[in-house]
Amino acid sequence: MITKQEYEKAKAYTLELFGKAGIAVTDEERQKIEVADFGLGRLFEIGLQILTYVNTDRVCAKEMVLSPGQACPEHRHVRTAGQPGKEETFRCRYGTVYLYVPGEKTENPVFKGISGSPVTVFHEIVLHPGEQYTIMPDTRHWFCGGPEGAVVSEFSTHSTDETDVFTDEAIVRAPAVES
Amino acid sequence: MITKQEYEKAKAYTLELFGKAGIAVTDEERQKIEVADFGLGRLFEIGLQILTYVNTDRVCAKEMVLSPGQACPEHRHVRTAGQPGKEETFRCRYGTVYLYVPGEKTENPVFKGISGSPVTVFHEIVLHPGEQYTIMPDTRHWFCGGPEGAVVSEFSTHSTDETDVFTDEAIVRAPAVES
Repeated sequence: MITKQEYEKAKAYTLELFGKAGIAVTDEERQKIEVADFGLGRLFEIGLQILTYVNTDRVCAKEMVLSPGQACPEHRHVRTAGQPGKEETFRCRYGTVYLYVPGEKTENPVFKGISGSPVTVFHEIVLHPGEQYTIMPDTRHWFCGGPEGAVVSEFSTHSTDETDVFTDEAIVRAPAVES
Repeated sequence: MITKQEYEKAKAYTLELFGKAGIAVTDEERQKIEVADFGLGRLFEIGLQILTYVNTDRVCAKEMVLSPGQACPEHRHVRTAGQPGKEETFRCRYGTVYLYVPGEKTENPVFKGISGSPVTVFHEIVLHPGEQYTIMPDTRHWFCGGPEGAVVSEFSTHSTDETDVFTDEAIVRAPAVES
């Protein structure tokens, strides 16, 4: 459960970073910023702020915002409703994002894991503004915001967050905000 | 045919607008900015500057840049290789873009047409920064840059420019730049 105060703080931070990144949003979009704590109740350690621009049957585009050190827990996008899993490209717009995917374990990574939430892949990809990486379906990944936080555009196929498979079995993807 | 001088001018303008829009690009991306005159030889009247971020079998994302009054001629994205035509969302990031689609003819539109290139749809959509519009497959559309030019993100399915159907039969989509 996210408290109203946490939600407002995360939303204000998101709008602050959109400002720094030069990203314009409409008043309507300001009202629909999603704040996810993945049901773990430690939003500023494990959480993600999301503004979904479009999500049709074929195409989805979002901005994602991470605060410094905030982690999106490890997950993968599996085959859903007879379609291949979600394919997504992350493009860093502001700050730095540290992304972890399968492959050779990086020596001395910036993030070694997520406190209290299991991860199994350790190949580090560092994205600065203008840099991007494509994650194919069914690929485990987790990511964290750098010292200035991060704004990351996601370009993908249809997004079905509710079918994501998380490594951490304690996770509940659908966000619950105090009413 | 686009002259080298025209190409360099259009590229410099594109990078200038990316700067104004706060859009970071890599050195490699700077080198692959596409400048299209649609074979008409009037680049700064009818043309488009494009940076394609990603174009896989399923997902495509680009930034498009228009100079003031520069027009992308009317076209539609038709069924290709057994797949539905391209679906695309335009999101204005900087400046203003005037988009024309099927529907009720707008009274007193900002652009009445494109000089020397036919158009058949006249419903005007005006997009300011943060505003967006989704164009479904096989929908005729044309668009023009406003007084400050425009930077427009495009989120779409796989892009196959070479199968686009233009209303103007004189158009050749594949760009040719003087070598």
